Amino acid sequence: MPAEEGCSGEITRHITRPWTAGQTGAMTAPATQPVIDLNSDLGEGYGRWRLGDDEAMLAVVTSANVACGFHAGDPATMRRTVRAAVERGVAVGAQVSYPDLAGFGRRAMDVPSEELRADVVYQLGALRGIAVAEGGEVRYVKPHGALYHAAAGDERVAVDVAAAVRAVDPSLVLLGQPGSAALAAAESLGLATAAEAFADRAYTPEGRLVPRGEPGAVLDDPGEVAARMLRLVREGLVTATDGTDVAVRAHSICVHGDTPDAVRMAAEVRAVLTRAGVRVRAFVPGS
Amino acid sequence: MPAEEGCSGEITRHITRPWTAGQTGAMTAPATQPVIDLNSDLGEGYGRWRLGDDEAMLAVVTSANVACGFHAGDPATMRRTVRAAVERGVAVGAQVSYPDLAGFGRRAMDVPSEELRADVVYQLGALRGIAVAEGGEVRYVKPHGALYHAAAGDERVAVDVAAAVRAVDPSLVLLGQPGSAALAAAESLGLATAAEAFADRAYTPEGRLVPRGEPGAVLDDPGEVAARMLRLVREGLVTATDGTDVAVRAHSICVHGDTPDAVRMAAEVRAVLTRAGVRVRAFVPGS
Amino acid sequence: MPAEEGCSGEITRHITRPWTAGQTGAMTAPATQPVIDLNSDLGEGYGRWRLGDDEAMLAVVTSANVACGFHAGDPATMRRTVRAAVERGVAVGAQVSYPDLAGFGRRAMDVPSEELRADVVYQLGALRGIAVAEGGEVRYVKPHGALYHAAAGDERVAVDVAAAVRAVDPSLVLLGQPGSAALAAAESLGLATAAEAFADRAYTPEGRLVPRGEPGAVLDDPGEVAARMLRLVREGLVTATDGTDVAVRAHSICVHGDTPDAVRMAAEVRAVLTRAGVRVRAFVPGS
Amino acid sequence: MPAEEGCSGEITRHITRPWTAGQTGAMTAPATQPVIDLNSDLGEGYGRWRLGDDEAMLAVVTSANVACGFHAGDPATMRRTVRAAVERGVAVGAQVSYPDLAGFGRRAMDVPSEELRADVVYQLGALRGIAVAEGGEVRYVKPHGALYHAAAGDERVAVDVAAAVRAVDPSLVLLGQPGSAALAAAESLGLATAAEAFADRAYTPEGRLVPRGEPGAVLDDPGEVAARMLRLVREGLVTATDGTDVAVRAHSICVHGDTPDAVRMAAEVRAVLTRAGVRVRAFVPGS
Repeated sequence: MPAEEGCSGEITRHITRPWTAGQTGAMTAPATQPVIDLNSDLGEGYGRWRLGDDEAMLAVVTSANVACGFHAGDPATMRRTVRAAVERGVAVGAQVSYPDLAGFGRRAMDVPSEELRADVVYQLGALRGIAVAEGGEVRYVKPHGALYHAAAGDERVAVDVAAAVRAVDPSLVLLGQPGSAALAAAESLGLATAAEAFADRAYTPEGRLVPRGEPGAVLDDPGEVAARMLRLVREGLVTATDGTDVAVRAHSICVHGDTPDAVRMAAEVRAVLTRAGVRVRAFVPGS
Repeated sequence: MPAEEGCSGEITRHITRPWTAGQTGAMTAPATQPVIDLNSDLGEGYGRWRLGDDEAMLAVVTSANVACGFHAGDPATMRRTVRAAVERGVAVGAQVSYPDLAGFGRRAMDVPSEELRADVVYQLGALRGIAVAEGGEVRYVKPHGALYHAAAGDERVAVDVAAAVRAVDPSLVLLGQPGSAALAAAESLGLATAAEAFADRAYTPEGRLVPRGEPGAVLDDPGEVAARMLRLVREGLVTATDGTDVAVRAHSICVHGDTPDAVRMAAEVRAVLTRAGVRVRAFVPGS
Repeated sequence: MPAEEGCSGEITRHITRPWTAGQTGAMTAPATQPVIDLNSDLGEGYGRWRLGDDEAMLAVVTSANVACGFHAGDPATMRRTVRAAVERGVAVGAQVSYPDLAGFGRRAMDVPSEELRADVVYQLGALRGIAVAEGGEVRYVKPHGALYHAAAGDERVAVDVAAAVRAVDPSLVLLGQPGSAALAAAESLGLATAAEAFADRAYTPEGRLVPRGEPGAVLDDPGEVAARMLRLVREGLVTATDGTDVAVRAHSICVHGDTPDAVRMAAEVRAVLTRAGVRVRAFVPGS
Repeated sequence: MPAEEGCSGEITRHITRPWTAGQTGAMTAPATQPVIDLNSDLGEGYGRWRLGDDEAMLAVVTSANVACGFHAGDPATMRRTVRAAVERGVAVGAQVSYPDLAGFGRRAMDVPSEELRADVVYQLGALRGIAVAEGGEVRYVKPHGALYHAAAGDERVAVDVAAAVRAVDPSLVLLGQPGSAALAAAESLGLATAAEAFADRAYTPEGRLVPRGEPGAVLDDPGEVAARMLRLVREGLVTATDGTDVAVRAHSICVHGDTPDAVRMAAEVRAVLTRAGVRVRAFVPGS
């Protein structure tokens, strides 16, 4: 993997030396313009309910993780979201989840492989149907909530998700945490992967996220967050909780839009990156 | 439309003179081997629940109307059903429904166009995802239950269904009742259509189904039903409730499999047709 | 029915001469302090989703129509809503609906009597369980959305709702539109009823609501709305669309809280009524 | 606890010396007629789907664990089931579950306490509403599937379930496995409890169930099963997998009815018990 990959957001089909979270070797600055993707969860309303300001976020992000009906996103909401993303040239990804509307997909579930794979295929297929109806295309998959966490840490779940994605379309990219079981499983099954960093989260010296609930886990100063992300893109480094630098590989930065403050922070990240000469564009090939 | 079309099950992309139910003109016997499709609702279980004997029916029918999760058919059931259909060379169609698990999609719902279209696109997309994951393909769409009835009689609903189908894949065929608003809307939007007859239902002299609940609406003698269907395929005629002959256009015969008696009747229909030299095969092009 | 009933919000178990909407006879001013109830839909979020400002509305209304899970209101939301209502002394009613989360219960459904009655019993029972767990009590029932409209105009549906309510607790009050099939059915089955007016809606000279979508159907000036409601309480009259006075019987005024503007209007109605000496209190006996 | 309690099915409000599974001390034979309850899961269909032969089982069991809509049991099915149970004098219990129709409540879910408690209150309240509408009463609660297992082994879940039950009606009995966290939590909160044995399951020498999937875990010889249950009732003992006797405390025996073989086995258990002079009756006080 060329050194600039983690910074530029370029991905290659076969990643021979996966980037290890926590790796401390300095990255050489890329000669080319640095590139990064911004992704966010969108279309997370359901019927009468709205969540966040999708319109505003579509002006900020380059990749839209669209909810597929299992934790949020009834079909009409999905279609409106995809239409708006297609109109703005934002890449569309499937945000697949456990079936759990009441829990917003955040509750861990022990779903057997046959069922989990079918659930992922179903949601992905549904979004693909909506995308084609809107003249678009699903380009990547990002598991949501409890499934994201399970796929990050549980190899069985990771393989189920990756196998389901491949069964539908082997050209899809799996978006997830660097060093996660999800990305490893996807790579082992021949899928392209993209690693993401979290704009508003603190990192441990080992390159892991400080768990929510611990003090300082979530950052709320837009200026600080934007500066951190600029450094991440330029140098592949973030400052960890102990003040040391930690290497974080990222093709994409995850930003949130579920509150007005979150939208402001996301916009600030984009503005700072753009002013600094970073090209913000989707990580998916051909976008 | 050539006279033999209604008998043979062949369909053409552009049907210039739609067959009118109740038309009494005798059909000339086709020189070629008569052909008909048998379709049935399959995969109508949900999770722990099973409905009917799908395995037995897959040996009888040539087209499987697979439930897509809104009235029946959780993703794992859908996948098992599609896998079995693909293995046996049975054509796969999407049985789209109103969102109504508790009512099995049989309760009329007033779903606004934007929502209905998105619902159809979603279900169709989901089944396409499952089909591709199983090496198969969705070839046609047949609305289910209350949506079938609404699409048959309500032009707004018919156009919504047809437009949604076309938006996903204009090569899909819409399967429905001859003379219905559903087929008319599909044809006006450029979709191919296939007309179906109902094996176990009595017809009025006008070529309409005798409504369920009226005496004699449902036929239960497998021998009589099979003989009626043979005549339908050979002559394009069925005996109506008043003893007269009525022309019924059909590319497919709908049979049921939700009870052991229904499975036996379906098998008898196929056996009688086959013994009489009728070729039973899917109506979809290329099958 | 004593003249003061329509003004005071007092209800009696047996209403011998039901108030007719559109009746023009002037009401004699009550000697006692005028009394009215304010009701609003509350707890209409679901899981992660919120709708409106329930906290603010609980300071305004005296009766909370709590969603019971079929159109909104997962169990945890229901429990929080009931707890807050009980803490503030706001009467709790069951807002029963068709099973339709994606459509927010606003889509007409043709639910057979056996199923509809069971659905109402189920939702009402669930809310009663939650109420008892919070030291409260369900005092009344108000159908929601499409079920409200069906129960208002369709006698079969009205009887189903009323019979279901009576089967659970014959001391419950049915809240609905004056002159509706719902109230008539409830009264014929021996249930107490309460009639409601809509604060922000225009009335025809016949005492009916101007249908949404028609010009002027929805009023948006808080001052005007509050003044209309004060006159309704004092005189039993509102100004109809043609400028004439129309008698409107109301034990309760329905106000909304789903937008900040709606909350402000509701608060203004309460403030104007209170300043004018109207006692705002729940219509249910004993509250 | 008097020695005969484990055999007779009598329960007392305060169980001072909880029976320990695996305890080997012989029980003295009761002077009175031995008594036992038979419980089974009923009403586990959903809408169009049926599961098992509820009619047949209602002639066998004395306690019906009625599904409450979260893993099975739409409201109309619940009502029919409760009506049939009330007509036959079978005690009604609430079979509460995680919200998981597609997984039939068998998939472990990590539901936070606030949500889990509200879910239990909701389901229990719903069934109470249906019971009162049918002139019956909910007498006990038995968690279903994954929630049963979680409540048996996880103290947090056990306390949530017990607290929710108590919040609705402290006179309800919790039915569960002897030695489980569920019964311990219920007792510590002052609820009465009833212990159940499983007719068709093998026991370890420690008095635990042999996990499903292990060889010999499930017994299928009706005669053997009935004889084991007779010994359980008379002596409080079953033969464990290693041939030794193990004491099993049980106020109730759980039998299944989801297959014709299961119904036959359940009927055989009842027939053998009755012929041997055991009184089969509900464990709930006053039944």
